[in-house]
Amino acid sequence: MGSQLNTSVPTRLPLTKNTTAEKLLVAASELMIARSSIEVSLSDIAQKSGVNAALVKYHFGNKDGLLLALLERDAATEVTQLEYLLAQPIAPTAKLKLHIAGIIRAYHQFPYMNRLIHYLLHESTPEAADEVSKFFVAPLLDFHRRLLAEGIKTGEFRNIDPVLFYTSLIGACDHLFFGRHAMSRATGVGPVTEEVCRQYIRHMEALICGGMLTTNAEMAAGIPG
Amino acid sequence: MGSQLNTSVPTRLPLTKNTTAEKLLVAASELMIARSSIEVSLSDIAQKSGVNAALVKYHFGNKDGLLLALLERDAATEVTQLEYLLAQPIAPTAKLKLHIAGIIRAYHQFPYMNRLIHYLLHESTPEAADEVSKFFVAPLLDFHRRLLAEGIKTGEFRNIDPVLFYTSLIGACDHLFFGRHAMSRATGVGPVTEEVCRQYIRHMEALICGGMLTTNAEMAAGIPG
Repeated sequence: MGSQLNTSVPTRLPLTKNTTAEKLLVAASELMIARSSIEVSLSDIAQKSGVNAALVKYHFGNKDGLLLALLERDAATEVTQLEYLLAQPIAPTAKLKLHIAGIIRAYHQFPYMNRLIHYLLHESTPEAADEVSKFFVAPLLDFHRRLLAEGIKTGEFRNIDPVLFYTSLIGACDHLFFGRHAMSRATGVGPVTEEVCRQYIRHMEALICGGMLTTNAEMAAGIPG
Repeated sequence: MGSQLNTSVPTRLPLTKNTTAEKLLVAASELMIARSSIEVSLSDIAQKSGVNAALVKYHFGNKDGLLLALLERDAATEVTQLEYLLAQPIAPTAKLKLHIAGIIRAYHQFPYMNRLIHYLLHESTPEAADEVSKFFVAPLLDFHRRLLAEGIKTGEFRNIDPVLFYTSLIGACDHLFFGRHAMSRATGVGPVTEEVCRQYIRHMEALICGGMLTTNAEMAAGIPG
């Protein structure tokens, strides 16, 4: 579906160079943030952006094509930051903590991103799911493989399987945003505020790095160091 | 919606006493397992159970009512086991490990359960989501509150917030099943087999208890014991 972008030009240009497509994505993203929902119509997007509705079809094929391009735009920013993080001259543990904070902040900054990922992976077409795998799941999993290898090499990390690690970290971060709505129906659970985000970042950093057992309990349980 | 069960009797009987309703739930669950999908029609369920289709409406109102009753039946088994686990004369850390294995095994044993939870919490009616919160989210969160309090009291657990803990543990377990389909499109990730389940149980037990840092790295990072 990504290949439907800029079909009129021989080589694919970055989205920022295509002002009409970019305008449409900005309008879609602003509408989703304003409505706290990914339920926005193509005509709403056209109207807000001041772009003729026919051009939406020209640039993105259909609505799922536009949603995919929007997620791809935001994911590209995140993937660039992963490469930047990996190249930093800091310890793997410090990179891991920045990564955990980065995922949670990205979901908080783009509240529709989590919903888009779920929609495109599970409720749209197999082709859309394949695209999301390619530009989101695969680069993130690759980053985890390289970060874990680095930390195991320096002796900071235990020998952990990257696929299992990916599943647990992404699942836990995702659930703050996707599961919160359901949880907020239970007693004592409020919405995801800026403060809840900060708390969850601290919680996840501590849990992923050191677990929940106290040092005494770890020694008693004989947990390998 | 659960209240639509047995509306003809003054007190609500356990489902196992109502052979027609129970037959319908068994048929629905068998069809979902056979098809690896929650997309089963009321007429398929009626046909497989040998029950008149009109009785489905009588017992469950509509299809979402039947799906809700099915999830409630399976969740009730899990909730009973949580109470049983909490009452055992074993250390909180041992209870936590059994609980982690229990969640992952339950999702594996009832492959449709995870999908049903997502559907009823996010794609059905607010009333269905409220019901799922009541019989699934709230008891599980309450169990976490009590288990963490017990472990903090014995000095085995750090002081961890139960809501943040619930979010990370349930999110991580859920993602093995809900996220795997998307991940399996990425390189080197296969389906969730019995062996993958065993690996994930070991991974989650080690991660939640001791984290991923080696003892040396934990000491260097000054992680509180």
